[in-house]
Amino acid sequence: MQLHILGCHSASPSPTAHPTAQVLTIRNHQFLIDCGEGTQVRMRLNKIKFTRIKHIFISHLHGDHFYGLIGFISTQCLLQRETELHIYGPKGIKEIILLQLKLANTYTSYPLYFHELSSDEPEVIFEDEQVIVSTIPLVHRVYTNGFLFQEKLGERKLNIEVAQQYPIDPVYYNSAKQGKDIKLDDGRVIDNKKLTFPPDKPLAYAFCSDTAFQPEMATQIAKVDLLYHESTFLEEHEDLCEVTKHSTAKQAGIIAQKANAGRLILGHYSSRYKKLERFQQEAREVFENVELAISGKVFEVG
Amino acid sequence: MQLHILGCHSASPSPTAHPTAQVLTIRNHQFLIDCGEGTQVRMRLNKIKFTRIKHIFISHLHGDHFYGLIGFISTQCLLQRETELHIYGPKGIKEIILLQLKLANTYTSYPLYFHELSSDEPEVIFEDEQVIVSTIPLVHRVYTNGFLFQEKLGERKLNIEVAQQYPIDPVYYNSAKQGKDIKLDDGRVIDNKKLTFPPDKPLAYAFCSDTAFQPEMATQIAKVDLLYHESTFLEEHEDLCEVTKHSTAKQAGIIAQKANAGRLILGHYSSRYKKLERFQQEAREVFENVELAISGKVFEVG
Repeated sequence: MQLHILGCHSASPSPTAHPTAQVLTIRNHQFLIDCGEGTQVRMRLNKIKFTRIKHIFISHLHGDHFYGLIGFISTQCLLQRETELHIYGPKGIKEIILLQLKLANTYTSYPLYFHELSSDEPEVIFEDEQVIVSTIPLVHRVYTNGFLFQEKLGERKLNIEVAQQYPIDPVYYNSAKQGKDIKLDDGRVIDNKKLTFPPDKPLAYAFCSDTAFQPEMATQIAKVDLLYHESTFLEEHEDLCEVTKHSTAKQAGIIAQKANAGRLILGHYSSRYKKLERFQQEAREVFENVELAISGKVFEVG
Repeated sequence: MQLHILGCHSASPSPTAHPTAQVLTIRNHQFLIDCGEGTQVRMRLNKIKFTRIKHIFISHLHGDHFYGLIGFISTQCLLQRETELHIYGPKGIKEIILLQLKLANTYTSYPLYFHELSSDEPEVIFEDEQVIVSTIPLVHRVYTNGFLFQEKLGERKLNIEVAQQYPIDPVYYNSAKQGKDIKLDDGRVIDNKKLTFPPDKPLAYAFCSDTAFQPEMATQIAKVDLLYHESTFLEEHEDLCEVTKHSTAKQAGIIAQKANAGRLILGHYSSRYKKLERFQQEAREVFENVELAISGKVFEVG
């Protein structure tokens, strides 16, 4: 699993502060999470292949999280994309996008699906054999969701050295990977545990931005391997959190600690801060394994 | 008069090809013309002060000409702008912007006015004592206007050396600048032409993008000092002009020649061309004074 940060600053973009966008590579998927203005250019700079992105998750309808979406969608038209594209985001996102396409007299060359979200409870919004994605209801000035990306338990792994000691036709290897014992032609039954190793531990990533401090979310994201939690402010500006519905770095640390997360990544920094080290320092007061999101940085997990 | 190119490529933005946006400084105004994705960052890089922009002219609702507008408008909210902002653009632009502000639960801290355009005839859309702005109806795949920016004839200029030879109270200098003869206390009348020089020749700039080749526009933009005319294609791809409703560099040259323009600036290059010199060469076959728009370049006139 890999998390590629394309942008991690809040509010207005500048030549050095790019708004939220990140690409999660999980099993056979590349998911785009949020899409601030300029994301398509950030993707080109970071060599993210447009057609690999089939699912885009938008947390909320503030500009620094989605003003780049219409540009990405339009560029796919110009490039004559054929692969389908799914957009998950708050109710209203479909109207905004379709209105702009209509007024530009543009039709998508590819199937474009909207999955509008309005529930205040966690819900599964994507699932296949490999991965499951759920919303994490957040508390912000507008309707906002975080997203929990969970790998499913994979197949067991064949112990090829042991398997080859028995007269097993390789067509049965898949059954073994699926946990089945293998019956030989001579009637013997080989216990699956002899033939296979357990699957890798499934990994999980939680994206939580933007949100006020909300300790009760720790239950839903318990034991995630990687947690991205917004930290718009340092403690000296904690008083701004209440009206803006944002969090401090230390509050992000508390969430990580309560959730027993593997690693915490901070981001969504207010542009008032020129240096970011203090975000890490303040979160580390409560949680050890903290890193700073930086545009262009790639975090590997597992 | 000064034209500052912020972006001049067509279609999808890339790290080196920025979509259309330019700032015209004319008399006491700075007008923003078109606002492709990323324009606010281009403005910061080019040190354009946001609050100096009070009027934004949008040619048409294709993304490479206006997807940066909502970001610019939102950033003005975050910066707590108080100065009014006027948007001139095709019918529908108000609905797009207001829908996005509504769904972001955002209110502008400043007066925001929309002037929606729908006429197929040239019309005056802005006028004050200094400047007049008219639409130039263009032919494109969607409703599109170019814009003609004209300085008004200014005041006559006082010949201070001559004026001081007469017993004229300086409070009458303004009357002289407005073309009036001055009557002295002893009854003599001083002819205005003795006291003043003629005003500077008023300058004019025509922005024509995007458009199919449309020679009849030459009448409306006759004798402009500066003409920006799109040149999406070179002659080898002239066949693409008909379906896309764009022009070649040579066609832009023909317009400049027919209009007897002072200078032609080419832009809106298709991203298929890596080198731009041929645009200049092909336009120069019909019109001598041709320059290439380049992001960040400033053209001075007058």
